[in-house]
Amino acid sequence: MSEARDGAVHGADPTIEATARTTLRRKRERGSFDRATIYSILDEGLICHVGFEDEGSVVVLPTIYARTGDDIYLHGAAANRMLHQAAGVPVCVTVTLVDGIVFARSAFHHSMNYRSVVIFGTGAKVEDEAEKEAALNAIVDHIAPGRSADARGPTAVELKSTSVVRVRLAEASAKVRTGPPLDDEEDMGLAIWAGVLPFETTALAAIPDPALRQPVPLPQYVSEYAKRRLGQRDRL
Amino acid sequence: MSEARDGAVHGADPTIEATARTTLRRKRERGSFDRATIYSILDEGLICHVGFEDEGSVVVLPTIYARTGDDIYLHGAAANRMLHQAAGVPVCVTVTLVDGIVFARSAFHHSMNYRSVVIFGTGAKVEDEAEKEAALNAIVDHIAPGRSADARGPTAVELKSTSVVRVRLAEASAKVRTGPPLDDEEDMGLAIWAGVLPFETTALAAIPDPALRQPVPLPQYVSEYAKRRLGQRDRL
Repeated sequence: MSEARDGAVHGADPTIEATARTTLRRKRERGSFDRATIYSILDEGLICHVGFEDEGSVVVLPTIYARTGDDIYLHGAAANRMLHQAAGVPVCVTVTLVDGIVFARSAFHHSMNYRSVVIFGTGAKVEDEAEKEAALNAIVDHIAPGRSADARGPTAVELKSTSVVRVRLAEASAKVRTGPPLDDEEDMGLAIWAGVLPFETTALAAIPDPALRQPVPLPQYVSEYAKRRLGQRDRL
Repeated sequence: MSEARDGAVHGADPTIEATARTTLRRKRERGSFDRATIYSILDEGLICHVGFEDEGSVVVLPTIYARTGDDIYLHGAAANRMLHQAAGVPVCVTVTLVDGIVFARSAFHHSMNYRSVVIFGTGAKVEDEAEKEAALNAIVDHIAPGRSADARGPTAVELKSTSVVRVRLAEASAKVRTGPPLDDEEDMGLAIWAGVLPFETTALAAIPDPALRQPVPLPQYVSEYAKRRLGQRDRL
């Protein structure tokens, strides 16, 4: 089990309770309610896609986030449409990691290897100042662990102009596909290449801001970023 | 302008008409209704996130897709919940490419460099057999150009068990952030590293299916995949 960000799997139960919404109707073997699996996908992802209703339309927007225990935090400008809408209403938060292309002999059985988490919840605006600051630090550290201690922290005005929304991991499930293609038996002998093309996302060399007014050494959490995210190779 | 997949920008108008839903309320300089920009993001993305309403809940699911002219095609098993729900109802289709982390001096101004497209539309089930087959080929070729001509094509039974949904690019916009951090003037002299950490997604060595029953050479469209997607470096 991968270690959770806060060092523990929350609740006594290592699984999240299944509901009608989170139970796969097809290919159930790909579904998981295991907290450790769900945590590891959420912790590896950089952005989520948040779905909510806005004036009668379903809207899906990308945004960064952080997980702390069984809570997901989203943030944005206080005037932000998504944050404004997501507080107090049902939302769906989805994180997807694309691991590779699955080339089957038949066009029909082509697929992707991926890991995803779908969370159903109701957004709650975080009013408590300590929780809000902790959540904002967690979001910065989710993207680059260690950065929140280094960057200039938020001022009172910045805190006031930022909204944070909490979504509980109460109703969530993971879906994972790994491994080779699954062709029909009658296609197995075809002389068509089949296999997996794995993907890897890596960090390139950091680009210092041309406006830096003094030489500042590249922090270790930036220079080591690539190593930290090079996990996919082990997962194939 | 990047060349559209079908060789032409559709319609006489190089831009898509703005609506209330696709007009950014904040940071409007990041928004674009330019068809070429929207096409290029959709053509580079591998998966989209589709939002729709299902029994009163907003649901966001990842899926592969293809763009042909001003149409986006989604597919799935005929029994697939998303496809079933997305036909005839309003959907939101979002594609996001994450290009890098933006480290500002202040925690507040941290950001991501990204390119995204948000499409609002109504899913229409594709009933015409020729359009359906062309869409399925386009989806395979979107993931790996050239593959549909190589793989064993769909049988009548496979076609029947697959649903294809079309979403018109009638109401869509792109949002793009590039470049260095934008800190407040009073923070510019701080001795805090600032800059951009660019990301790159590459293909690793292809893994042949262990069940291949005869040696099959790796197709060129697989071996050259990495080169094809190495576009990010030029975009920084």
